[in-house]
Amino acid sequence: MSRRLSEDELIARFFAPSAGPAALGLTDDAALLTPPAGCDFVLTTDALVAGVHFFADDPPAAIARKALRVNLSDLAAKGARPLGFLLSLALPPDWTEAWLAAFAAALGDDGAAYGCPLAGGDTVKTPGPLTLSIAAFGAVPCGRMAARTGVRPGDRLYVTGTIGDAAIGLRVRQGRGPDLPPSERDFLVSRYLEPQPRVALAQAMAAYANGGMDVSDGFVGDLTKMLRVSGASARVDVDRLPLSQSARAAIAVDPDLLAVALTGGDDYEIIASVPPGNADGFEAAAAAAGVPIAGFGEAVEGNDPPRFVARGGGTMTFAQGSYSHF
Amino acid sequence: MSRRLSEDELIARFFAPSAGPAALGLTDDAALLTPPAGCDFVLTTDALVAGVHFFADDPPAAIARKALRVNLSDLAAKGARPLGFLLSLALPPDWTEAWLAAFAAALGDDGAAYGCPLAGGDTVKTPGPLTLSIAAFGAVPCGRMAARTGVRPGDRLYVTGTIGDAAIGLRVRQGRGPDLPPSERDFLVSRYLEPQPRVALAQAMAAYANGGMDVSDGFVGDLTKMLRVSGASARVDVDRLPLSQSARAAIAVDPDLLAVALTGGDDYEIIASVPPGNADGFEAAAAAAGVPIAGFGEAVEGNDPPRFVARGGGTMTFAQGSYSHF
Repeated sequence: MSRRLSEDELIARFFAPSAGPAALGLTDDAALLTPPAGCDFVLTTDALVAGVHFFADDPPAAIARKALRVNLSDLAAKGARPLGFLLSLALPPDWTEAWLAAFAAALGDDGAAYGCPLAGGDTVKTPGPLTLSIAAFGAVPCGRMAARTGVRPGDRLYVTGTIGDAAIGLRVRQGRGPDLPPSERDFLVSRYLEPQPRVALAQAMAAYANGGMDVSDGFVGDLTKMLRVSGASARVDVDRLPLSQSARAAIAVDPDLLAVALTGGDDYEIIASVPPGNADGFEAAAAAAGVPIAGFGEAVEGNDPPRFVARGGGTMTFAQGSYSHF
Repeated sequence: MSRRLSEDELIARFFAPSAGPAALGLTDDAALLTPPAGCDFVLTTDALVAGVHFFADDPPAAIARKALRVNLSDLAAKGARPLGFLLSLALPPDWTEAWLAAFAAALGDDGAAYGCPLAGGDTVKTPGPLTLSIAAFGAVPCGRMAARTGVRPGDRLYVTGTIGDAAIGLRVRQGRGPDLPPSERDFLVSRYLEPQPRVALAQAMAAYANGGMDVSDGFVGDLTKMLRVSGASARVDVDRLPLSQSARAAIAVDPDLLAVALTGGDDYEIIASVPPGNADGFEAAAAAAGVPIAGFGEAVEGNDPPRFVARGGGTMTFAQGSYSHF
């Protein structure tokens, strides 16, 4: 086996080519950024551990994309345009240059695609599993961050895309999923493996939303948490919750998968709480951004958990609202 | 054993009490910060792994302080005043509430002492060793960051405090140190265990320094790296390098410890490269800030590694310039 690269060599070879201007060529131990005028900074971080948040043998490009995109999803939910990110990477003893090259290339491609380049980082070794943490930062017009605490009674509640694909996709990947055609299975698994952060919705969130949160630990649990910290409750029309064709097909085979879809994690869609007077503007801005949204209910006074009302008026309850990685 | 706390409970109990205003009570998944007027943002991150960067049975307060302070040292070297930090914490299966309480309390105390409160974070579980990553951010007057690439030929070179205490202290702690009185041993070990970041020097760095770098991987190696990325060389007067009384005592017992002192890591002092016309101002500002500094040489034209000139004109060379954690 060839000599191991030093940390400096590794950075120069794999990460420097795709680093952004804030990274100063990754020759410094800090990143430098001039804040856009009239903006607040939004900062977020997410850690991922092999064997906990992904499979150690997942493709390195998929791990890279997931690590960055879960942070981009947080920024988008806050209405923040991404500016860059810092990477902390703890590599286990068996890392290979091929693995790292694929990981860094995917991170570079995603950084370019989402306008969120690598700004700096730290690479260390670990005797344990591959562990990575990304801290991403973005800019939102001053005073316009869509806080998790921002839900106000009377707000219309929206969610982007479709809910539950990733949770069902994880079951499919684990061989516990329903019998479905390959195209449906592939779609669901891809939704688990590769979050598509709703970065395009950030501007609409900042312009129109009172509150925002990305759905990462399960729709029911995340909505419940958002309402609790906002001091509000909600009425949810279960039939208006957006499900993909593939998720519907899965639920048709196994009706228990509806609860899995609504409480499983890894959606990386955005819940938006929008005052009624802003609803038309929000819907138009989302359409202009190419982001599908669905209204699913409204926020109401109270401290109770949200009521999930099904067709005919019955309510759904859930044994477990969300998945906890902890 | 009692029921394990959920991630939300753990955050509310241990971390929320000491979080700063940017943390929004740690109820959100992002931190919000209004940039100080006329400032650039400086961002840095460092990861620490149990068994690699600290001993798993080190006191939790010492681990917390080290994790935050190594980042504060980076910010200070850039001339940046700290604003806050994000914490990624991967806890092994055997974590205890007592451990976490002590860790969080120390982090809160240090955040208050250095004006750098917790702004957000992520807590996950790991089957591996305790792993933590801190991303810290600060503000520097626009255009005044002391970059690692900023050394210019003719600059006076300074370093804060004393060099090599931590490297000798680590040997003492490992039972490989020289025979010394307990007070000297304790001082050296404390310098290894608890970095004292030179946050007080940040303003002087921004006002007067061309270039700055914190000494974390060994003085010789870090200076060599700083000069290489700046495209400069230097003449270093070995006899002007600041050594503590305890380090001098250790070296008197074992002369080989001089090389250990100059190439070992964990100093967390700052190298400043200051144009001659700014030298008086820099020295006065450092004195006003209560930070001891020592001039040890000057930057010169060229691409050679720095020349370490000893009394009498001979040069010192080092088998290994720095310690690599990687």
